[in-house]
Amino acid sequence: MKTFGYAAHSPDSPLVPYSFERRDLRENDVAMEVLYCGVCHSDLHMVQNDWDWTIYPIVPGHEIIGRVIATGSGVTRYKTGDAVAVGCMVDSCMECDQCKKGEEQLCREGMTGTYSAYDRITHEVTYGGYSKHLVVREEFVLRVPDGLDLSKAAPLLCAGITTYSPLRTWNVGPGSRVGVIGMGGLGHMAVKLAAGLGADVTVISRTKNKEADALAVGADRLLVSTDATAMEKAQSAFDLIIDTVPVKHDLNPYMPLLDIDGTLVIVGQVGPVSTLSTVPMILGRRRITASPIGGIRETQELLDFCAKKNILPECEMIRIDEINKAYERLKRSDVHYRFVIDMSSLTGPGENIGQNVCQN
Amino acid sequence: MKTFGYAAHSPDSPLVPYSFERRDLRENDVAMEVLYCGVCHSDLHMVQNDWDWTIYPIVPGHEIIGRVIATGSGVTRYKTGDAVAVGCMVDSCMECDQCKKGEEQLCREGMTGTYSAYDRITHEVTYGGYSKHLVVREEFVLRVPDGLDLSKAAPLLCAGITTYSPLRTWNVGPGSRVGVIGMGGLGHMAVKLAAGLGADVTVISRTKNKEADALAVGADRLLVSTDATAMEKAQSAFDLIIDTVPVKHDLNPYMPLLDIDGTLVIVGQVGPVSTLSTVPMILGRRRITASPIGGIRETQELLDFCAKKNILPECEMIRIDEINKAYERLKRSDVHYRFVIDMSSLTGPGENIGQNVCQN
Repeated sequence: MKTFGYAAHSPDSPLVPYSFERRDLRENDVAMEVLYCGVCHSDLHMVQNDWDWTIYPIVPGHEIIGRVIATGSGVTRYKTGDAVAVGCMVDSCMECDQCKKGEEQLCREGMTGTYSAYDRITHEVTYGGYSKHLVVREEFVLRVPDGLDLSKAAPLLCAGITTYSPLRTWNVGPGSRVGVIGMGGLGHMAVKLAAGLGADVTVISRTKNKEADALAVGADRLLVSTDATAMEKAQSAFDLIIDTVPVKHDLNPYMPLLDIDGTLVIVGQVGPVSTLSTVPMILGRRRITASPIGGIRETQELLDFCAKKNILPECEMIRIDEINKAYERLKRSDVHYRFVIDMSSLTGPGENIGQNVCQN
Repeated sequence: MKTFGYAAHSPDSPLVPYSFERRDLRENDVAMEVLYCGVCHSDLHMVQNDWDWTIYPIVPGHEIIGRVIATGSGVTRYKTGDAVAVGCMVDSCMECDQCKKGEEQLCREGMTGTYSAYDRITHEVTYGGYSKHLVVREEFVLRVPDGLDLSKAAPLLCAGITTYSPLRTWNVGPGSRVGVIGMGGLGHMAVKLAAGLGADVTVISRTKNKEADALAVGADRLLVSTDATAMEKAQSAFDLIIDTVPVKHDLNPYMPLLDIDGTLVIVGQVGPVSTLSTVPMILGRRRITASPIGGIRETQELLDFCAKKNILPECEMIRIDEINKAYERLKRSDVHYRFVIDMSSLTGPGENIGQNVCQN
C-alpha cells in the first residue's frame, strides 16, 4: 500500500513529508488509517539519534489511534471500522517465557519497535504513526473501548502504559502512598493513574509553581524538594515513587522519602544517574529500579481502565506541519502535557502543493 | 557487675584492656559470660570512626556466643547454663509496625546497637562482646541450638544474618540462581547459605584465584568479572546477586547479569557507589537494593537452619591480645574468612600483670 507521512533523514534535519510503501497485508495483519498520534519525548530523542540506534529515514510516532480499513484473511479480533490503537511495539517472538506471560516488551529476542526497527519477517525498517496508514499484526493491535475520546487517547499508548505498568507491578491501590517526581507527559499521567487506582498521590517538584496543576490533575498535594524541612517531614512517607525526570539527576534526596521496602522506579531517564549512597537503602531496604512500557494485555487493561474511570491525558492538538515547532517547544518543556497530532491535517503528496515531498 | 574487656579510646589508638561496669540485671535481663566473639569489618570501621558516629571508649563485638550465668526475675526463656548468642542489636521499641513484624533491625525509633549506642532506659553507652560478660534483655538473646559448634557459630550473628536475610527476603530456594560478588566474611557465608537453601550459586570475582575456595565452600562455579566473553555469556543468568564488596565500586558490569525482575542486593558497601546507568534496569526491570541484618525471629531461624544443615563459617581463632594484629590483617583482607576471638584468652585485670588496663 502506498502511503505518506513525515520523516527525518538525519539527526539535524527537520521532519519533512515522506512517501513510502506499507507492506501488503499478511494473514494476521490489520491495516488502519491513523487518526491521532501522540508526540513522545522519545520521538525527539530518536530523530536526533540521541541513543545511537536510529535508522534513517525515520518516521516517528508510537502513540497511535486509528480506524481499521482492512484485515488479513486470518484476523479474528478486528473488523473494518473498529477504533484501534498501537503503542511502542509491533511484534515479538511470542514464544519465550516473557511473551507467554504477556510481557512482550521484555521478549527474550527483543520486541520490534513501532519505528526505526527491523520487521521480524522481511527485515524492512518499521515506520511509525506520523503517517496516514499503518499495518500491524493483530496481536499487537489494541481495542479502543467505547467511550474513550479518540482525540485524547493516543498518549495512553506510551506515557500512559509507562506509568501504569509500574503502578500495577508494585501493586498500587487504595491505601498506597505514591510520589511522582516531575509533572510532564509521563508525570501527569502517573498522577492521574495512581489517583484512579485509589492511591494517595504527592507530586514532588523543585518549586511550588506546579502546585495548582498538580492538584488539578488529581494529586493530593505537592512536596517541594528544595524545602529541607518539608523533605525531612516526608521521610518514609511513600511506598512507591515514580521518577519521570528525563535527564541525569541525583536520586539521593528522594531515597529517604521511601518507606521501608519502598521502591523508586525510574521511567524518565535513559542513561546515567548520579552517584548513589547505599545508606538509605541499607537502613530501609529501599529499592531502585526502572521500568519500560507494559505488555499488550496490560496495555489493553489500561485502555479499559481509562475508559471506565474517564481518565485521559491533557493534550494540545497540533497539525502535522507544526511538528518541528512542537519539537522545539518539547526541548524547552513548553507543553501541557502532551502534543497530539490530528492526522487529518496530513494530506497526500498530490494535495500538498509546495511542500518538500521526499520520495523513497 | 564489674567486668573487663578491650576498648579503643580514639580513632587512632589500639584496643587495650578496659575495666567497666555492666548494669545490674533488670527483670527481663539475661547475663552471660562471653565465650567467643567474631571480628566484623564493622568493628574496625567503628573503632576508626569511619562512619562518624562512634562513641569512645568503644568496646566492639556484635557476633557473640555466650553462656547464661544469671537471669532477671521475669526471664522465662533462658536459664543459667544455656548456650546463647547476641548479634548487632540489644534493644528496640518493640511497639512499632516493624518490631511487631519481627523486623526489629528496622525499628521506627532505631534499634539499639550492641556497642557504641545508648541504652533506651538509662542512656548509658552500650559495650559489645570483646568483654568477659554481657547483659542483654531476653528478647534480644538468641538460643544456640544443640549441635552448633560454639567456637564457630559467632560470625552467624552478623556475617550470617546479613547474607541470610536477603536470601529469605527474595525467596531463594531450590531453582534460584544466586550470584555472590566478593568472597570475604560475608561472601563465603552467602555462598554457604544460598547453597544450603538449595540454590545454584556462582561466585563472581575479578580473577580465577578464588575458584578452588569458592567451590570448597559450596559454590557451583566461579565467574571471572574481567572476562568479557564469560560476562556476556552470563547475561540474565541470575535471579539474585548478593554484592558483598565493602568499598565504593561500579555496579554497571553486574546489572546485565540479572534476569528480568532480578535484584542486586548490596550488603557490603556503606556509602557511595559509582554512577549508574538506568539502561539495563529499564530493559529488564532490574532492581538494586541494600539490606541490613535481619530481625530476631529470622536470626533464630538462621541459627536453627545452620544447626540442621551443619553450616558454619570458616573461622580463624585468635586470642584477644592479638586483636590489633588481626585488625591490621583485616585491612589487607588477609583472613579466611572470619576471625573469632576465643574469649577464654581474656583474663581479668588482676590476672593481667603488666597489661595497660584503663579504668573507666
